Order: sequence, then C-alpha cells, then structure tokens
Amino acid sequence: MFIRNAWYVAAAAAELTDAPLGRTVCQQPLVFFRNAAGQAVALEDWCPHRGAPLSLGWVVEGRLICGYHGLEMGCDGRTVAMPGQRVRGFSPIRSFPVVEYAGFVWIWPGDPALAHREALPKLPWVDNDGWAFGGGLYHVRCDYRLMIDNLMDLTHETYVHADSIGQNEIDETPCSTQTVGDTVTTSRVMNDVTAPPFWQTAMQAHGLDPSHRVDRWQVCRFSPPSHVMIEVGVALAGYGARQAPPEARVSSMVVDFITPENADSIWYFWGMARDYRPDDHALTERIKEGQGRIFGQDIQVLERQQANLTRWPQRRLMSLNIDSGSVMARRIIDRFVSAEQIEAAA
Amino acid sequence: MFIRNAWYVAAAAAELTDAPLGRTVCQQPLVFFRNAAGQAVALEDWCPHRGAPLSLGWVVEGRLICGYHGLEMGCDGRTVAMPGQRVRGFSPIRSFPVVEYAGFVWIWPGDPALAHREALPKLPWVDNDGWAFGGGLYHVRCDYRLMIDNLMDLTHETYVHADSIGQNEIDETPCSTQTVGDTVTTSRVMNDVTAPPFWQTAMQAHGLDPSHRVDRWQVCRFSPPSHVMIEVGVALAGYGARQAPPEARVSSMVVDFITPENADSIWYFWGMARDYRPDDHALTERIKEGQGRIFGQDIQVLERQQANLTRWPQRRLMSLNIDSGSVMARRIIDRFVSAEQIEAAA
Amino acid sequence: MFIRNAWYVAAAAAELTDAPLGRTVCQQPLVFFRNAAGQAVALEDWCPHRGAPLSLGWVVEGRLICGYHGLEMGCDGRTVAMPGQRVRGFSPIRSFPVVEYAGFVWIWPGDPALAHREALPKLPWVDNDGWAFGGGLYHVRCDYRLMIDNLMDLTHETYVHADSIGQNEIDETPCSTQTVGDTVTTSRVMNDVTAPPFWQTAMQAHGLDPSHRVDRWQVCRFSPPSHVMIEVGVALAGYGARQAPPEARVSSMVVDFITPENADSIWYFWGMARDYRPDDHALTERIKEGQGRIFGQDIQVLERQQANLTRWPQRRLMSLNIDSGSVMARRIIDRFVSAEQIEAAA
Repeated sequence: MFIRNAWYVAAAAAELTDAPLGRTVCQQPLVFFRNAAGQAVALEDWCPHRGAPLSLGWVVEGRLICGYHGLEMGCDGRTVAMPGQRVRGFSPIRSFPVVEYAGFVWIWPGDPALAHREALPKLPWVDNDGWAFGGGLYHVRCDYRLMIDNLMDLTHETYVHADSIGQNEIDETPCSTQTVGDTVTTSRVMNDVTAPPFWQTAMQAHGLDPSHRVDRWQVCRFSPPSHVMIEVGVALAGYGARQAPPEARVSSMVVDFITPENADSIWYFWGMARDYRPDDHALTERIKEGQGRIFGQDIQVLERQQANLTRWPQRRLMSLNIDSGSVMARRIIDRFVSAEQIEAAA
Repeated sequence: MFIRNAWYVAAAAAELTDAPLGRTVCQQPLVFFRNAAGQAVALEDWCPHRGAPLSLGWVVEGRLICGYHGLEMGCDGRTVAMPGQRVRGFSPIRSFPVVEYAGFVWIWPGDPALAHREALPKLPWVDNDGWAFGGGLYHVRCDYRLMIDNLMDLTHETYVHADSIGQNEIDETPCSTQTVGDTVTTSRVMNDVTAPPFWQTAMQAHGLDPSHRVDRWQVCRFSPPSHVMIEVGVALAGYGARQAPPEARVSSMVVDFITPENADSIWYFWGMARDYRPDDHALTERIKEGQGRIFGQDIQVLERQQANLTRWPQRRLMSLNIDSGSVMARRIIDRFVSAEQIEAAA
Repeated sequence: MFIRNAWYVAAAAAELTDAPLGRTVCQQPLVFFRNAAGQAVALEDWCPHRGAPLSLGWVVEGRLICGYHGLEMGCDGRTVAMPGQRVRGFSPIRSFPVVEYAGFVWIWPGDPALAHREALPKLPWVDNDGWAFGGGLYHVRCDYRLMIDNLMDLTHETYVHADSIGQNEIDETPCSTQTVGDTVTTSRVMNDVTAPPFWQTAMQAHGLDPSHRVDRWQVCRFSPPSHVMIEVGVALAGYGARQAPPEARVSSMVVDFITPENADSIWYFWGMARDYRPDDHALTERIKEGQGRIFGQDIQVLERQQANLTRWPQRRLMSLNIDSGSVMARRIIDRFVSAEQIEAAA
C-alpha cells in the first residue's frame, strides 16, 4: 500500500556522516552511507555472507565494511572484496537510487530504471538565498495515510493545538478542495479574525501589532507519494490576505515529508520554510522549537487512532467535507499503487 | 467466555471526575464520563468520524468532545453537533447501561433491554451508617477465572500470605461447599487456633487479648458474573465463632469485584467492608493499606500461573475438594455463557 | 531443531542454592533445586494441581513446595504430600536426568533411559589441580547455531574484537577444517605475527616480551550437542607454536557451552580454562572480566543478525571456506536430530 516509484525522504543530509545509517523505508530495511565522493548510497541492509545487517559496520574510504567478517560491499550492491576470498560469485544485494537534495537524502524504493531527478518536488528554498528552512524528524506509529489525513484537514488545530495555532474560525470557515493533475489542494481563508498565539508572536517579530485583526489563510497541497506542503500566513485585515504587501503580512510554508517505515509506522520529516530574514539562524531555531512542540501534540492522537483502527479493522470511517482533501489524496495514492501493481504483473 | 448480561464494576466512582476515562471491559474499549447531571455514561471508545478514541477528548457541560476534530458526542451514542457539519446522518456508536452504586460505576456490557438495577448485588454497606468500606484497584494479567479460583480456595493463604493471614490450620480444616441458586458458598471454621498476625492486630484494636485462642471462620460466596464476597473473622474460642457476641469477636467482609479486561487480564477491585467504628477513617486507611499489601502478593502468582497455562494450553488441571468452590463457580459461569450464546443464536 | 539426547549446561553449580531456579532449556520450562543430599534435580516447572510454576515456591529439606497451595513435589516428579489431600492419584510431572560436573549443572532433555555420565564432555580442569577455570553466563536472543557459527569462524575477531584479539592475519591465514567422528576441528596457525593487545597483556604477565614476534594458534572444536572448545595461544616465533616449551608460550582453552532456551534464544555459558598459575584467583577474575567484555561484543551482532534472518526467512546464506567448521557442525546436528526423529517415530 505504498507508491514505490517515487522519491521519499530517507534522512536529513546531516544524519549521514561517517557511519552507516540503518533505516527501514516502505518495509525495506536499508543501509545508507556516503561513497568516496561523499555521495549518499542506499543498499539492502543485509550482508550476503551471513545476513548480518551492514549498518552495524563502518565505512572506510567510501567502502562499506561488514562489521561481522569484514566483507567490503560496493555502492552497487556487489561485493568488492573480502579478506582471503574470491568474491566474483557472491550474490549481489539490491541498491537503490538515492539523491541528495534540499538538505535531505531521498530514496526511490521502486524500479531504478524509472528514477529521475525531475520527479523530485520543487522546493522554494533550494538555490534561493531569500529562503530559509528548519525542521526535525519524528517517528510515529501510524499508517502514513493517517498523517496525510491530519495535514489535509486542519480543523484539528482547534482541538489538538488549541494553545498555539487553533481557533474556532477554522471549523467555522468552509474549505475548498480540488484535484489538479496529481496534486490536491485544500484551502481556507478566515477573514477579519483575531490571530492565535503562534501568529501573534510572529506578527510581533515582524513589527506588526499582534492585537490587530487579520485575514488568515491555510493552503494545503498534497502530492504523491506522501508530501504535504502548507502555505500559512496572516495579513492585516483588508489587505488582501495572500495578496497583501510584504510589510502587512507574515507567512511561511509548512513542510511535511511523510515516509512510511512499515505498514503502521512512519518517519515524519517536518519543517518550516520562510522567505524573510533567511540569515537569522536564531529565528530558525526558535521557529523549529515551537513547531516541534506543536507537531509533537499530534503524535499521541495519531498513535491512539491507529491503535483503535487496528482494534476495529472492519469499522468504517466517515468522510465529511473537511475530509475531501484526504479522500482525494487517497484516491491518487490508490491510482498510483494500482498502476504499479498492474505494471508489476505484466 | 464472559457473561455479558450482568453488572461489572468498571471504576471507582471517584475515578470519574471531569475528564473522560478510557477503560476496556469484557474486551470492549469504552469511554466513561459524567453527563450534565453528573451521571455516569459509557460509550464505545470510538469517534464515528475518524476512529480516534473519544477518551482522548474532554467533557464540556456533560457533552463529550472528541479531542481530534471537535465532534460532540451525546450520552446515547448519537452525535449532537460538530462545527460546520450536519450530524443527523452520523453513524451512532453503542452506549451501555451504567449505574453508580455503592461507590462504584457499574456497567452492563450485554443487551441493554435486560439491564435492571435489581440485578446489582446487595451490599451491606450501602445506605447503612453502621458500615464502612475501603478498597483499591489492581490490574492483573490473568484470566478472571484464575482470580475466582484464588478467592474460592483460601488454602493459598498459608503459602502466599504466610506472614499475615496464613496458618496451617486452613489446610488442615476441610471446607464445605454448596451451590444454592446461582450462588456458591464455601466455608471453613477453624476452632481453637492461634490467630495469625493480621487478626492479632485486629483483636488488639478491638481490645481483645491477641494471644487468646480463637475460633476463626471464612465464608466465601461467589455470585455471577464474577463477584466474590468473603465473610472473615475470629472470636474468642468457645463463644460460637460467627455467633459470638460483638464484644468477643472481630469480623469483616472481604469484597472482590473481578472485571475482565481482555481474555487474560482483569481489573481487580478489592476492598473490605466492616460494621464497627464506621467513622474511623484512619482505621479504614490502615486496613486498606494492609489489605493492599496482602492482595498484592497474589499478583505475581496469578500472572506466572497464567503464563504457564498459556505455555501449556493442552494440559489439564486437577480439581481437589479444596477446588469445589471454583468448580461450582465455573459451572455457573458456563451455564450463563451457554444460555447467552443460545439466546444470541436464536 | 535441538538434539535432545545429550547433556546441556543448565546452570553454574553456584546458581543452585537454597531456592528453586526456573530456567527454560530446549523449549522446556524447568525448575531446578537441590534434594536433601544436596544433589541437583530438574522437573517440569508445572504444579500438577493448578499449573502454577513450581519455581515460585521454596525448598524445605530437599522437598520442593509449591508456593501457591503447598503441594510437596518429590524429586521424581511424583507428589509426595499436600495438606489435607491423598496424593496417590496425582498426575506426575516429568523429571529429567541431571548431573553436577565441572562446576556446572547438566541436564539431559531427552530420553532418561539413554542418559549416562560417559556422554559428558571430557574437560581438562576436572579433578586436575594444575588447571583453573573462570567464566560467566549471557542470555542472547539468537538461534544457538548462530553462536556455533560465530565460534567456528574466528575471522570475526578482526572486526568484532578489533581492539583485543582481532588482527588482519586471522583473515589472511587459511584455516583447515575436518570432521573426525562427531567432532569438527577447524584450526589456524599464524606464524611470525605481532601479538594483539589481549595476548600482549598475557605475554607480559608471563614474563615474555610483548613486542616479540609470535606464532599464534586457534584450534576450535565443536562437539554435539552444541559445545565449542577453543585452544588458543601464542609462542615466541620459531619455537614450534603449540609445541613450544612452556617458558616460551602462553595458552588457554576457551570454553563455550551453548544451551538453547527457545528457538531463537540461548543461555551462553562462556569461560576460560588454563594450565598455569591455577591458584591465582585474582588472575582468574581478571581474565574473566576481560573475556566477559570481549564476548559481550558478540551479543549485539548476533541479535541483530537473528533479527535480520527472521525478517528475511527465505533468504539464503553463503558458506565460504571460513564457514566449513559451522557447515560440518550443522551437518552433525542435523544427523543427530534426524536420528532422534526416526527413533521417536518408530
């Protein structure tokens, strides 16, 4: 139930240092490391000799050494050498296309022949000095689609994040949802409202009066396999919301790369990108800390929801208007998965 | 393997405060809360919208609010409201008969049409100023019938509770067991024995000489679905045991409400009721503390016994004369369960 | 997948004191205790009355008392007594042949009629004042055969124990492996090498110059059911390695008794026997500490290897020349297991 021919974030680039990194993506245990040129590589986390995980080993000049008996594994999944052995006939292990982009290591779990850089999402902060990005990683024990649901229906902010970004007007303002190509967009504009605490702090940091009424917007975009980017912001009321001039607004892009680990667990790479004060690293840290706290509030809800769904597998969920974004996103996922299955069967 | 048409203790009344309480009874995950009138209510712990457990939410003026997207659930399992939604067609969830009685919240997991207050056990300390009650709750990982076995055969006191209520005469004195209607009674009177430590303390508190020889009695009563009440006491030897006048005796009623959680775990509500010094709260606390320590000794034995039975599922147990109480109790349980299954099939 | 008609180490003799010891061997939960004569006894860990584990009880004058209802179990698995009961008809439980030998309690999980002391391994330090032994116990979550693999292919020392006993020459020097009867021997002699840290320390303790070139040997011997004894040592280069005179060498015997607990966990009794300074208890302690640290390094590797094999059950392992010892050992195990199965079916 995962799209396989797609790029998933496997790690923050900074996680991949001198040591190999073991991480499961789409039910595939993988080992990541850097080759001699410093480029990220991903292989099955399996030594062809005796099945030890290669991630227990170490990297010497870009070659991955098995920590059990010293087999040297090449970046293509073929054994390079092993002391005292002729390795020509050694069974290869699978290697996976990997690219480093936007501060992340991306992996393509499916057919390597189909992997191409153009399939990576366009991200505004890449090669753009006007933008900054900060974020973190959570491990959450839920089906990745529950996290997509969460992010495509922001009415939950009023309840789960009542003390920071929630406000009643989110529930009261209908959202509008549409699918264009493979992208689902669900948006909501709340006109002439009081800014909630998180945004009041942001307004203050921008020299705006936090008690001023604002127009607030939330534009969530899902794209396959499981990325959700959310444009969020407030502008002084009456200035045209997203169209307001920079001096009358504060806005950001919430970034969510959701990577399935197993059927009911995910690696959740969350963050925020912004196009103001990009060099203010203290601000980046402060935003990351605040976002980390807020996004951490979802973990218990999602894990308990998952436990309930596991307990009652036959039970149907309801899809309301607020769930349109997630319904359409799941439809796209299902379409891709079916297409891959038909392809695989052919 | 549970009787469903019966009252089980789900919680101490004091556990049910402002917040909802999630608790599984007879394999049914439930949420308990108080309605606007302060009355206890039990529903399936499932939000009909997206399956989040309602027990993660909160209660506002007697309405249960889902903590994920703000759905308001009514006490009858029908959605009352949800911001921005027409809720008329929302799938209802099951509600369960609940009564508050004797300081406990009782639930009827079976057919609501059959639930009636008269089926509650008669408890001497209810509406009776001459009695006091104190107790606690343990979670134990064993089949609820192992706890019934434990309480209907008190020879284990000699071994598990050797330092408090055990004494060799329990083993040496045969018990007499009989079933009358749906109640099983197993009783034992030990004449002219030394009181064990727990009873010596109680005698002293009553102004009786603890070194005096006593007649000691234990009368265990099982009634469906899984309640065991035990009359226990000592009287100065020769005064007629249970018939002895109040000034020559000390006695209490051990209270055991055993509520299955899952097939191999229970909520064990234990306590002691007494008809002397009912207003002495310090005494109530002291008894509760002592009983809590003693009853805590059973937990490891029962959990390890359960693990052994799970490990060797085919292996038969022996039923000796001392086990007659539990044999008869299980027979009654089996009869009720069969009758319910026949009813359900019809 | 265990040989059943064989002696396994169940415990260090010192583990068996006044209290009964519960331990699972070859998937059989057992209780060990000492009878009135101080001899070790092993029974199923199951009270025939209600299935409580007998290991929860206690021992009174060599009789095992069930801690739940006081049943007295005899050393032959027949109930001796129970207060207030006639025990003649009580179901017996299985008893197992046990011997105490070489500081260990040994158990024979199979047919008692086939158990005989002669089947115990010959151990040099038994009844020999010229030898000393020290060791410890680790619980490791892996198939016992993975530990045999580990010990029959010491090339892993170069990687897992790089800081103590590993050196490149282990990989570079071919081993020679052969089966004689039911014993597999794999040996390697590295001539004219630098001693690794562990052996430098040992040379120093022997008054040998640790910087001197040495000939180093490793002779691993597997014998059923799952014992591996390894002769290890170094001698000043050119003195004939194992044939070198005592004043030019240091050597020891690594002792590994591998006892399956369940299909994927073991009790690993490791130790070292030596024929020098047998009365130097401080030295025994120091060796044990060092060995414990080194052998502890294998635990993570083996547990992670096991997890990988469990994750990928269909995947084949490779057997190289360095694996010959383990291949031959498994062949012997398979032969014994098959023979027992044919016997059992007949």
